[in-house]
Formats: sequence, C-alpha cells, structure tokens
Amino acid sequence: MMQKMMVSLGERSYPITIAAGLFSESASYWPLTAHQSVMVVTNETIAPLYLQPVLAQLSALGINADSVVLPDGEQYKSLSVLDTVFTALLEKPHGRDTTLIALGGGVIGDMTGFAAASYQRGVRFIQMPTTLLSQVDSSVGGKTAVNHPLGKNMIGAFYQPTSVVIDLDCLATLPPRELSSGLAEVIKYGVILDYAFFEWLEENIDALRRLDQKALAYCIRRCCELKAEIVAADEREQGNRALLNLGHTFGHAIEAHMGYGNWLHGEAVAAGMVMAARTAEQLGTFSASLTERLITLLLRAGLPVNGPQQMSAEDYLPHMMRDKKVLSGELRLVLPTDLGKAEVRSGVGHDTVLAAITKC
Amino acid sequence: MMQKMMVSLGERSYPITIAAGLFSESASYWPLTAHQSVMVVTNETIAPLYLQPVLAQLSALGINADSVVLPDGEQYKSLSVLDTVFTALLEKPHGRDTTLIALGGGVIGDMTGFAAASYQRGVRFIQMPTTLLSQVDSSVGGKTAVNHPLGKNMIGAFYQPTSVVIDLDCLATLPPRELSSGLAEVIKYGVILDYAFFEWLEENIDALRRLDQKALAYCIRRCCELKAEIVAADEREQGNRALLNLGHTFGHAIEAHMGYGNWLHGEAVAAGMVMAARTAEQLGTFSASLTERLITLLLRAGLPVNGPQQMSAEDYLPHMMRDKKVLSGELRLVLPTDLGKAEVRSGVGHDTVLAAITKC
Ligand SMILES: NC(=O)c1ccc[n+]([C@@H]2O[C@H](COP(=O)([O-])OP(=O)(O)OC[C@H]3O[C@@H](n4cnc5c(N)ncnc54)[C@H](O)[C@@H]3O)[C@@H](O)[C@H]2O)c1
Ligand SMILES: NC(=O)c1ccc[n+]([C@@H]2O[C@H](COP(=O)([O-])OP(=O)(O)OC[C@H]3O[C@@H](n4cnc5c(N)ncnc54)[C@H](O)[C@@H]3O)[C@@H](O)[C@H]2O)c1
Ligand SMILES: [Zn+2]
Ligand SMILES: [Zn+2]
Repeated sequence: MMQKMMVSLGERSYPITIAAGLFSESASYWPLTAHQSVMVVTNETIAPLYLQPVLAQLSALGINADSVVLPDGEQYKSLSVLDTVFTALLEKPHGRDTTLIALGGGVIGDMTGFAAASYQRGVRFIQMPTTLLSQVDSSVGGKTAVNHPLGKNMIGAFYQPTSVVIDLDCLATLPPRELSSGLAEVIKYGVILDYAFFEWLEENIDALRRLDQKALAYCIRRCCELKAEIVAADEREQGNRALLNLGHTFGHAIEAHMGYGNWLHGEAVAAGMVMAARTAEQLGTFSASLTERLITLLLRAGLPVNGPQQMSAEDYLPHMMRDKKVLSGELRLVLPTDLGKAEVRSGVGHDTVLAAITKC
Repeated sequence: MMQKMMVSLGERSYPITIAAGLFSESASYWPLTAHQSVMVVTNETIAPLYLQPVLAQLSALGINADSVVLPDGEQYKSLSVLDTVFTALLEKPHGRDTTLIALGGGVIGDMTGFAAASYQRGVRFIQMPTTLLSQVDSSVGGKTAVNHPLGKNMIGAFYQPTSVVIDLDCLATLPPRELSSGLAEVIKYGVILDYAFFEWLEENIDALRRLDQKALAYCIRRCCELKAEIVAADEREQGNRALLNLGHTFGHAIEAHMGYGNWLHGEAVAAGMVMAARTAEQLGTFSASLTERLITLLLRAGLPVNGPQQMSAEDYLPHMMRDKKVLSGELRLVLPTDLGKAEVRSGVGHDTVLAAITKC
C-alpha cells in the first residue's frame, strides 16, 4: 500500500513516496536513467544496513553509482566533513549532471542537501530518509545545512530535492531512543497545526512505538502532508513556516550547551515545546491544562519534558539570542495558543522566558 | 557623471551604479538604513586603502558596521577561510537580517557572495568591486564560489547581490598587471558578443591602460550591460550564459596546474581565448587572421597569448575534464565563430584540443 503526494513548488515541485520495501524497487530511483552518475552519501552505521540494496538497484538500472561513507553523529555535520563529500565527488570526477542520494537520517539529509546545493553551484539530489525524524520532517521542505561551532544549522541553503523516498522497513533497525526523537516532531505538527491529529496521536502513540505499520504509514503521510502544505505556502520561511520551529529555539540552546549529539534533536525539541508552552502560559495565551496534556503525550512517547539538570535558566539566553529567528537583537518565539494552533511572538521579555524555563 | 542600469531578474533585480567617488557617497549604501547591521568583508591589501571611508559612511548613516579582513590571494578563496567569515558573523552575533558588503576584487566578491548565500541560508549582500575584473565581470550576475584543492570555483551558489556599486577611483591603486587581467574579460565581451565593442577596444585600449576616466566609464558600462543582458536571459547558465566562459576551460587548467595565484585569472583567460580560437581554426569555424587580430589586442592590453612554458599540451586535459561544463565525460567548449560571435561545441576531440594548445 503505497502513499504518494506532491510538494507543490512550481517548477521545483517533487513527489514523496511512502511504503515498505521501497529501497529495493527500481521505481524509487526515478528520475535516474541508465549511464547517469550518482553519489550515495551515507554514514558508517547505515552503510552496512542499507547501502548494498541501494547500490544493487542502481547497478541493475545501469547507473554509475559511487558512495561516500561519513562518520556518524551530529558533531560531524560540519563544513570540514562536507568538504570530504566534495573531495569524493571531484576525485572521480562527477560533473554538473550528477545526482546525490542522501541515505540516512536528518544529519545525512541536511549535509547531502547542502552539498548538492553547493557542488558546482547546484546538482540534483534525492532524499532517502532512514529515521522517523527525517521521514516526517527534515527530508521534506528543502532546508539544508551544516553546523558551526558557534551555532547549529548556521550555514546552509534552501534547496529542494528531486524526490523523497520513504521506506518504512528502515525503522525496524532504528534505536528506540531515535524513534522517540522523531515522535517529538510528529507531536509538534499536532500542536501547531492539527488538533485532530493530536487526538489521533493520543490514541495511537503506543502503536507507533510498537512500529505498527498501518499506524506508521498514516502518521508519516499526515506529517508529510502538513509539512508539504506549509512549505508550498512559504518556501523560504518568511511567514507561517516559522511555526515549524516550535520548541526549537529552546531546543537548540540545549543542544548547543550540552554539546551536539548528547541530547538528541527531538529530545531537545520536546523539552523546548514544554518551555514554549510555559512561556505562553506566562503571557496568558495558553492554559496550564493543555500544557499538562502535551507533557503526558511527550512522556508516553518516551521523551523528556524538562531541560537538562546541568543547565540553569540563564544558560539558555545567549544561545537563544543567536537563533536565526532573532532579528536585530529582538527575541522571537513560536508559542502555542491552543492545541492545534500557534503564533510567532516578537519581543518576548527575557524575564518571561527565564520564568518559563525555571518551571521546566 | 553617474551611470546606472538594472539587472532584470524579476524580484531579484538589482541596480549597478558606476561613477568616481561612490564609496564616499551615502546613496551608495542603499538599501541600508539606520540601526541595521552590516559586515564588511575585505582583505589586508584593500583594508588600508578603502575600509575607513566605507566604515565612515556607514557610521554616518547610523548603521552598525563590523568588518572582517581576510588574507589576500586566490589561495585563500577556500572553504576554511570562508569559515572565518561565518565565525566573525556568529561572534557578534549577526542575525538573518544582516547585510554583507564585499569590498574587494573577484576573490572577495565570490567568497562574500557565497558567505551571504549560505549564512543562515541566505542574507543580503552588496558588491563593491575594486578591481577592473570584478567591476566588469564577477560582481554582476550572481555566480559565487570558493575553490577546492581539486578544482576552481567548485563549491558555490547562484546568488544575486542587492546592489553593485562601482567606484572608478579604486582603479588608481590597482597594480597594472591586475588592470591587464581585467582587460582580458573586457576583450572577451567583444569577442563573444559585440564586434563594434571589439573595434572600440582596438581604438581605446591605450586610453584604458592610462586610466582615462571617460574611456573607463564607457568600457565598464558596456561590459555590465552585456553581462546584465546575458544573465537576465539565462540566470543559471543553462544556455547562452555559458558563452561567458570563452577561454575559461583552458584558463582554469592553467590556473590549477600552475597553482592558484601564480597566473592571474585574466592572464589565464587571455591565453585560453587564443587556445579556443586555435581550436575553432582546427575545426574550420574561425579564421587565422581573426586570431591574429585577437592576439594583437591582447598583447596591447599587456596580456599573455601563450600558455606557460612549463605546461605541455597533455597537462591541460585532466584539468579540463574536471570543468563544470563537462557532461558525462564529454568535453564542451566555448569557441568563437567570428569576432563578436561564439558558440558552445560539444564533443570536441581531444586531438583537436591538443593540436590547438600545441600552437600556443
Ligand atoms: N532540514 C530540516 O528541515 C530539519 C528538520 C529537523 C531536523 N533536522 C536535522 O536533522 C538532524 C537530526 O536527524 P535525525 O534525528 O534523523 O538524526 P541522525 O541523522 O543523526 O540519525 C540518528 C541516528 O540513527 C542512526 N540511523 C539512521 N537511520 C537508521 C536506521 N534505519 N537504523 C539504524 N540506525 C539508523 C544514525 O546513524 C544516527 O546514529 C539534526 O541535525 C537536525 O538539525 C533538519
Ligand atoms: N563570479 C564570477 O562571475 C567571476 C567572474 C570572473 C572571475 N571571477 C573570480 O574572480 C577572481 C579574480 O578576481 P580579481 O582579478 O579581482 O582578483 P583579486 O580579487 O585577487 O584582486 C587582485 C589583487 O588586487 C588587489 N586589489 C583589489 N582591489 C585593489 C585596489 N583597488 N587597489 C589595489 N589593489 C587592489 C587584491 O587585493 C588582489 O591582490 C577569481 O577568483 C575568479 O574565479 C568570478
Ligand atoms: Zn526539528
Ligand atoms: Zn573570468
């Protein structure tokens, strides 16, 4: 049972395909054709699991495929590791007509996307996301980036893939903590955009954690639909797309302070969403009972709802002020106004934020 | 006597302004307004000459300006030097609403443009080109890049500036060899697009080398016009824009083989144009007498018309096969068909190219 949808961006539109077993089907490699060249970018954890089946399909299609295997971890999402991708491409060399395939989670997807955006000023790329987080969020929408020691995702591009291919079978090998991390972004969609989906999650969170295929397929499709809609309406994040950053300004502070890779992205976002909810409570725009409902769902998803013990409230602000949403020194935050609704608030006072963090 | 024109690219359109003394006029800093933040990117040669006047104007306008001074040279047009620009931006920190100003030649312009394209996935930037080459060519059109050890301009983006401000006074301090290098690109426009301009150059080449203001102003305006037209018709170099690469595939081989910075870009392009002309002769599509006219003009401009003695014809091909215009292993070259006309030729035989290089 294959699900297919389009991200509508004019001449940059592209399909998302969702089903079990997709990596082993030749149709998944559209629009590649015989004699074209491809560079599969993956990491040392994913390569032993999924690289051979992918290369086998490419080879059966008569495609000249190379691969580059990066070290695994958020700390390697850097300009210098990116450079090794460029080196691999240039050693062959791959021309402007090559295609990159991102085979991995959000780290591989973000880096490969930025490599594709910059290699020879832009080549095609295909997303083959292998984590729940990358399937529901990072592989769709064209945000690509690497980190800088002074800030996460600070160097990147808006660059859309040619196609997104989601193979549900991948999730079987995903560590449970990574699955939970993806569920944080799933829950985020419910909070900012879709109360009915939030309720569906309250009913199906256990099925999702058990990897029930039907629940997963519906969940991933719904998230991709919501993301595709928001991206189609606001590709470069000048308006509503910013809502997708709920919990992220707080979350990035946690990730940066704790050192990339110690807290998972989704874990930091989960705690960040609670902090955003508490901030909205302080401003009188969100009720404590809804925050409790959010906390309950996050906990059932296996996620943290408090920041790290080692971090004081004051530790957050310098990181938060470096966030991309900060304009001329003014803190802008995404805050929920109801379950299923959120807004971007400018000029939120530092005291309000500190008080909210202290509660978490 | 100020000259002004537009590069027409829909919502990405921007003005080019040409006059003496522009860096010291507040209107040159449009569209910046008070309280905005700016990072001026320049190098250690240009900073002592032009940074203070620029910072003084910005400060008079109430703009918060920082600056970052890079080492001087093509060998520093690298991903790792780019990283120091990001570090400077993040240390303050500069937000997504900042503007970068490229104050320098093509190296600074290309790097600053790519930094602007990638910092926080894209911020505004203004080109203030200080070499003839950057004024007539690299500052207009949105090609930005850094080099990789395995190839020139291999990592970059198409990213348009907000404005291009050309101050003719800068050229007074430019070393004569650099002026000649710029004249190579000037002559290129005549060869590929405009026979009348080629003739005008034959009449005015000495005036240009003397820095005659009237001749310079006309020459730079005409080049910017030609470039703006070609860019407006083909922003991403999928068609006619490729003609601008006349001499560049050969030239890049020279630059790469000799080590970046030993041969100037325009010098390599000058020798490369003669090689392209000789290749066209081999194919019977260009006459030897026109090549002689081109050689005469290049020599009067102070440019080389032969490749480096140390390079054998065989040394060129591996570099040329790595060129961005190579598609699936097939060599594509821009070749003149007349003075004022050129074409892109695919599948030019290696023997033909070797024979042409041997003649130079
Ligand atoms: N571009 C966007 O819009 C966007 C959105 C959200 C997050 N992100 C980015 O995504 C990244 C986080 O992505 P992530 O959570 O996928 O992390 P990740 O890519 O680091 O993957 C998590 C871990 O799971 C392993 N793994 C991946 N697939 C596996 C599989 N099928 N089986 C076993 N192990 C597997 C990986 O090797 C890694 O160790 C962050 O860098 C974040 O900034 C980007
Ligand atoms: N983006 C494009 O479309 C495009 C087109 C052509 C060339 N380029 C790139 O441009 C670069 C070459 O540019 P360039 O020739 O301007 O070289 P450059 O930037 O290295 O400048 C040449 C030298 O002149 C010095 N200088 C600059 N302005 C000066 C001034 N006013 N007075 C005294 N010294 C000054 C510089 O410090 C440098 O030492 C190459 O990297 C090439 O790839 C890009
Ligand atoms: Zn996220
Ligand atoms: Zn050039």
